[in-house]
Amino acid sequence: MKTFEELESTVRSYSRGWPTVFEKGKGYKIWDTDGKEYIDFFAGAGALNYGHNDDGIQEKMIEYIQGNGILHSLDMGTTSRKTFLETFKETILAPRNLDYKVMFPGPTGTNSVESALKIARKVTGRDTVISFTNAFHGMTIGSLSVTANSFKRHGAGVPLHHSVSMPFDDYVEDQNTIAYLERFLEDRGSGVALPAAIILETVQGEGGINAASMEWLKKVDELCKRWDILLIVDDVQAGCGRTGTFFSFEPAEIDPDIVCLSKSIGGAGLPLALTLIKPEYDQWGPGEHNGTFRGNNLAFIGATEALKFWETDAFSKAIKEKGDVLQKGIEDLVKKYPELDAHHRGRGLMQGIAIGKHQSTDDICAEAFDRGLIVETSGPDDEVIKFLPPLIIDKDGLEQGLAILDESIKTVLGK
Amino acid sequence: MKTFEELESTVRSYSRGWPTVFEKGKGYKIWDTDGKEYIDFFAGAGALNYGHNDDGIQEKMIEYIQGNGILHSLDMGTTSRKTFLETFKETILAPRNLDYKVMFPGPTGTNSVESALKIARKVTGRDTVISFTNAFHGMTIGSLSVTANSFKRHGAGVPLHHSVSMPFDDYVEDQNTIAYLERFLEDRGSGVALPAAIILETVQGEGGINAASMEWLKKVDELCKRWDILLIVDDVQAGCGRTGTFFSFEPAEIDPDIVCLSKSIGGAGLPLALTLIKPEYDQWGPGEHNGTFRGNNLAFIGATEALKFWETDAFSKAIKEKGDVLQKGIEDLVKKYPELDAHHRGRGLMQGIAIGKHQSTDDICAEAFDRGLIVETSGPDDEVIKFLPPLIIDKDGLEQGLAILDESIKTVLGK
Amino acid sequence: MKTFEELESTVRSYSRGWPTVFEKGKGYKIWDTDGKEYIDFFAGAGALNYGHNDDGIQEKMIEYIQGNGILHSLDMGTTSRKTFLETFKETILAPRNLDYKVMFPGPTGTNSVESALKIARKVTGRDTVISFTNAFHGMTIGSLSVTANSFKRHGAGVPLHHSVSMPFDDYVEDQNTIAYLERFLEDRGSGVALPAAIILETVQGEGGINAASMEWLKKVDELCKRWDILLIVDDVQAGCGRTGTFFSFEPAEIDPDIVCLSKSIGGAGLPLALTLIKPEYDQWGPGEHNGTFRGNNLAFIGATEALKFWETDAFSKAIKEKGDVLQKGIEDLVKKYPELDAHHRGRGLMQGIAIGKHQSTDDICAEAFDRGLIVETSGPDDEVIKFLPPLIIDKDGLEQGLAILDESIKTVLGK
Amino acid sequence: MKTFEELESTVRSYSRGWPTVFEKGKGYKIWDTDGKEYIDFFAGAGALNYGHNDDGIQEKMIEYIQGNGILHSLDMGTTSRKTFLETFKETILAPRNLDYKVMFPGPTGTNSVESALKIARKVTGRDTVISFTNAFHGMTIGSLSVTANSFKRHGAGVPLHHSVSMPFDDYVEDQNTIAYLERFLEDRGSGVALPAAIILETVQGEGGINAASMEWLKKVDELCKRWDILLIVDDVQAGCGRTGTFFSFEPAEIDPDIVCLSKSIGGAGLPLALTLIKPEYDQWGPGEHNGTFRGNNLAFIGATEALKFWETDAFSKAIKEKGDVLQKGIEDLVKKYPELDAHHRGRGLMQGIAIGKHQSTDDICAEAFDRGLIVETSGPDDEVIKFLPPLIIDKDGLEQGLAILDESIKTVLGK
Repeated sequence: MKTFEELESTVRSYSRGWPTVFEKGKGYKIWDTDGKEYIDFFAGAGALNYGHNDDGIQEKMIEYIQGNGILHSLDMGTTSRKTFLETFKETILAPRNLDYKVMFPGPTGTNSVESALKIARKVTGRDTVISFTNAFHGMTIGSLSVTANSFKRHGAGVPLHHSVSMPFDDYVEDQNTIAYLERFLEDRGSGVALPAAIILETVQGEGGINAASMEWLKKVDELCKRWDILLIVDDVQAGCGRTGTFFSFEPAEIDPDIVCLSKSIGGAGLPLALTLIKPEYDQWGPGEHNGTFRGNNLAFIGATEALKFWETDAFSKAIKEKGDVLQKGIEDLVKKYPELDAHHRGRGLMQGIAIGKHQSTDDICAEAFDRGLIVETSGPDDEVIKFLPPLIIDKDGLEQGLAILDESIKTVLGK
Repeated sequence: MKTFEELESTVRSYSRGWPTVFEKGKGYKIWDTDGKEYIDFFAGAGALNYGHNDDGIQEKMIEYIQGNGILHSLDMGTTSRKTFLETFKETILAPRNLDYKVMFPGPTGTNSVESALKIARKVTGRDTVISFTNAFHGMTIGSLSVTANSFKRHGAGVPLHHSVSMPFDDYVEDQNTIAYLERFLEDRGSGVALPAAIILETVQGEGGINAASMEWLKKVDELCKRWDILLIVDDVQAGCGRTGTFFSFEPAEIDPDIVCLSKSIGGAGLPLALTLIKPEYDQWGPGEHNGTFRGNNLAFIGATEALKFWETDAFSKAIKEKGDVLQKGIEDLVKKYPELDAHHRGRGLMQGIAIGKHQSTDDICAEAFDRGLIVETSGPDDEVIKFLPPLIIDKDGLEQGLAILDESIKTVLGK
Repeated sequence: MKTFEELESTVRSYSRGWPTVFEKGKGYKIWDTDGKEYIDFFAGAGALNYGHNDDGIQEKMIEYIQGNGILHSLDMGTTSRKTFLETFKETILAPRNLDYKVMFPGPTGTNSVESALKIARKVTGRDTVISFTNAFHGMTIGSLSVTANSFKRHGAGVPLHHSVSMPFDDYVEDQNTIAYLERFLEDRGSGVALPAAIILETVQGEGGINAASMEWLKKVDELCKRWDILLIVDDVQAGCGRTGTFFSFEPAEIDPDIVCLSKSIGGAGLPLALTLIKPEYDQWGPGEHNGTFRGNNLAFIGATEALKFWETDAFSKAIKEKGDVLQKGIEDLVKKYPELDAHHRGRGLMQGIAIGKHQSTDDICAEAFDRGLIVETSGPDDEVIKFLPPLIIDKDGLEQGLAILDESIKTVLGK
Repeated sequence: MKTFEELESTVRSYSRGWPTVFEKGKGYKIWDTDGKEYIDFFAGAGALNYGHNDDGIQEKMIEYIQGNGILHSLDMGTTSRKTFLETFKETILAPRNLDYKVMFPGPTGTNSVESALKIARKVTGRDTVISFTNAFHGMTIGSLSVTANSFKRHGAGVPLHHSVSMPFDDYVEDQNTIAYLERFLEDRGSGVALPAAIILETVQGEGGINAASMEWLKKVDELCKRWDILLIVDDVQAGCGRTGTFFSFEPAEIDPDIVCLSKSIGGAGLPLALTLIKPEYDQWGPGEHNGTFRGNNLAFIGATEALKFWETDAFSKAIKEKGDVLQKGIEDLVKKYPELDAHHRGRGLMQGIAIGKHQSTDDICAEAFDRGLIVETSGPDDEVIKFLPPLIIDKDGLEQGLAILDESIKTVLGK
């Protein structure tokens, strides 16, 4: 670890909580240089939905490199870009009756969000964007302005503008957050300008695994339609099957104007991002938003191969089943350890256990790491242990992970 | 091309000027699906300094994938990250007596710039950043605020703040731009607050291949030291050997506080970015800036292998020699076609030919494309044809490219 | 009226609704050049609490001018400034156990608000200020940023920053706006930074005569104390006795850190403003906020004389009694004309009648004007008829005014 | 002075440098409570161009008050407002062939500037305004954003936006500031957006009595016309005859789109401000900018009477002659005291003497105060002694003042 401590910036974060050097990964397991095995309930913060080093993706990537395939192309036409576009349309968009134009905004989630905000402002001629409490949309200044966490916002070093934070579903006890939002929008004296867009995550990952109800999502969608506000769903973490459907908003039967995808869209964890835009709002000038790595062709190869998981319903069904196993496991822990003052959060394979204020989630995660489980915290006060196993995990893996967590909690409570 | 026209956003840009589908690349050449060969004077806008599919890099990447190496790791410790850090220190920093902490800010140039601006503001407690006319630093809101191009700025959809544009070297005929900058800084009534940082490119790539003199760079550095302003060199395009030395600022013998690297740092064109920070300014809290793809391990593999080019002086010398060939070729064209009202710009293998207002650089580049040369324009009015061949190009390749350009100009002028 | 139409800017407003040329005023009556008499239920939008041309004030002003008293002095020491300061301390501050330093920020309410925001930001080192829905604090950019009306905000021509709009008391049906505010303040992930200050009017005049309950004001005050947020009461319109006590916040038994006064503080309607600041927050550097007319000595003369009204409790009691008369009058109208879908608002001599959406307040006010009553509308949709008679009005005057309003409503409903 | 020290905010400024209590004023003289007489070379920072308590103005004001004239009217029609508008048109606008609509924006200079910026942004749909180094336009956030002084800007407590500071005439030694401005405007890659307006003072008062040349003003005007930028002249301090003509820009033969007037426009030092707008740009909605004291009728009375000074050329000629006397006096001092390293600045009766860095202007002004001369400093480092005598001063008064200054300098240098 000396190398990281001496040569790397103090900004490094995960290598502090998991102080080892990782070497290999396959499926839902990883190994460090000492050969110690870990179950991965973190999955690259949602970037490894298909697990580590999927055989099919590996094979295609090696074949592509060996064949001298174009690796870097900005937005020039390439065979791998073409194939990905066609496959994405056929496998994902067409079966869901979605008609989006695909933008490659640069290979990160924050870049997708920045592009979404820009086009929403251009199309509407308005500057304000409404985001929600405990939202996380990225760390560049545009995305950070719609991110709620005060530590991260403060890191900007400058005040963040052109955004208004509204309460997410269930944010204030016994208060109807939709009634607030509606009142602010309808009243010309509310002090909140008619926004260009409302941006949301259907399940807030970094914000503490807060899952909006389908009813709440529907109502936000209705408000957007009533006032010609664009609805942006940031599906960077909750998308690509994480909640059981490819897009996390499918069960709400809503119709976002713009969708941000990244993390697992590249299949193997290589950087890639997409911004999906309804054709009527795709009013970009050529090059009006760009970026050097918007054509990461090796990621197109991985992304195309990964879409095979979505050719039938089987994958989706399996995620839901495993989600039920996970939820039961969490609920059992909640009951077993009442002193944790805990409760369950989330849906699909994006779940968490929120712990009462007097307990340390960090201690629990540290015990879990010692026992071979990689799991991290989230929420404004790190009060939630967040479970994001690879979607390809089997029940055995889930149960092993939950068992380690059980022991870790027991140990921490025993101290 | 129908796929791109129908499925992709109108934001796509290069696939309009070079309307074909590329398939393979090796060294300084690429081929499209029809088997047509092109000489690449574009090199992924500077992301492919080592050419397409370098044998050594290919081999290491394949080996890594086959061995189930960790591909995605955020900022967890991995073997590939460790090796890269050590090699970068040994090959690049130590021999140049540079003592930077290395930050991985997310895998794009704009992310590196955003992180540089944040830390400069945090360290100084000031909000303003001075940037220069015709600067390009990226497309996310923080970086865009220090980018000068009005089309790109306007795309933000919101006013851009906390930045002041000052004249770059030689910007106003017969005016001493350093005298202006100095006066604005020294006068408490100038209307420009003492800035957190001054950010600059030593050679402005997108801005029209404007190369600052070494004397000008030295004076900016002195002004920064006099007023405790951090100097940020954005070496995303001009770095990694593009101008003949690894860092473009080496011949100026200056000492930037922060350096942004991306594009070619990954070796093979895979997304990667570094922010180099003097230890005394590395005051980040853990995770105060982050990003899902800040640990792109396949790019670490490529980056480490590419650093072999820098083990001796030979590569640097060769770039300078090829730069001389390129410069002579450009100057010959300037003389041969006086009706172009042209002049030479740039240094190393980052050069351009600026064309008078009555001629179309786009037409010339289109003719060149037809003849098998990939070359693009830059500058606020696209008035410059920009030459960024891979650094590994040989003289033969350079001369072929120049010959195609000669014919293209002749054809356009003949019309 | 031709003079105004031809020579004045289209921004003129009141001369459209009351299309005549006024010449004289005395007490609660004014006369136009045709000799027509009007009862004034407008009182200079609250700047003429002591009525037009009070005998005592007139006498002192004439005496001062005749004696070649200093009229203009910025913040130089003058006899009239000295006497005002001493009288204000003795008559207003000391009896209420208030210990404020007095700042003269320039002679307008908006200037007082701008100075309050500046000092709150300086003292706390924070930039955000929380204001409320339907707040009105002024038209210069700082004050406008905490003003809620969308028409007025839009007039800025630039986005307004550093402010967050929270729901005023009773803003959303059946919702607890204090719970909402508290949640945003306590949660580090709310997206709202800890503010420098909360600014409020206890009764929103322009916003539609919305009177906060004493309980709500107390709770806001408690939240401010809990998080070291400065509480600014903008008492420009509701202060100087308008609600029955000199400061409108007295019945809430709260303790604002900063108080803004203007409008009637000058006694005769001459421009004057004060910013009252708790001594521990009076951290201005000399001249850090200034203004040419911050020493309007004739206004000091009027202001000092007007403070005589406050030497005993009698004036305060009389206002409350007249307020009861006014309230009963309004409630009678509400009952008498159910088709208005009206309800009563406000307290003291700052009351209004809110009319349902299908009726025109403008028509009613126009009828009233024809019948000799000056009364204006307020609220985001001009849905409230606002009653601000001079505090020195007698019951006869109140009843005459109410009678005219009754006839005006009848006429409009009859059409 | 104890009253001011104990009761007033620490923001008070002039009462520190001139620590006495003033009581009376007449013409160019004032007296304190001890009966000590002072010659006034300050004139209310330019608000008392017609001297203290002009007989004619006094008489009209008393008559108006005695006649129960309307004192406060917002923008209702009144006889005094009507008469002022007609007299201003007839005496000032018509003879100069100027066709402005008159706006009353609230009774302070900063309010006039705020309104000018708003309408310029509305009319052009652009947000940036260009202002100049060492400009002073006011202390509310909109005006402060175009004010250059760093102490005053810092007092905002928030970053100031939507403005760009350009170098004033002669700002950088041996550099052509017009060439600089032109280059930034013409280049689409300059980083400075096409502005809504350029705002300037022809002679910068607070900034150090910097007088722009007529040629420079003409060129700025030409640049504005070339790019459809509105030219705003802030004539708050330099207008109303201060430089010898009613408007300070008359000798430059330029044609501003908007003119800001305040300070001496009220005649007697009572708060009043005007914004003059070319009819084609007068696109306000009713009430889009407002303010409680925009109808200060007693100031209309004073303003109307003061316009009598402008019925013939005599007043203008006399100012110029007295300006010559003042200039000669200053130049004599410059020669007599070479150790001051001084030079002359300004024109008309708006002149100054700039002192080298090693001398204290504060000490000189303090000596002058002791000897009965009121004179203040200006400039970013208070390096200029500023002479703003009332325009009605006689040569005797000028010479007495200069003599006191001579002695004061001698005393300070002798220490």
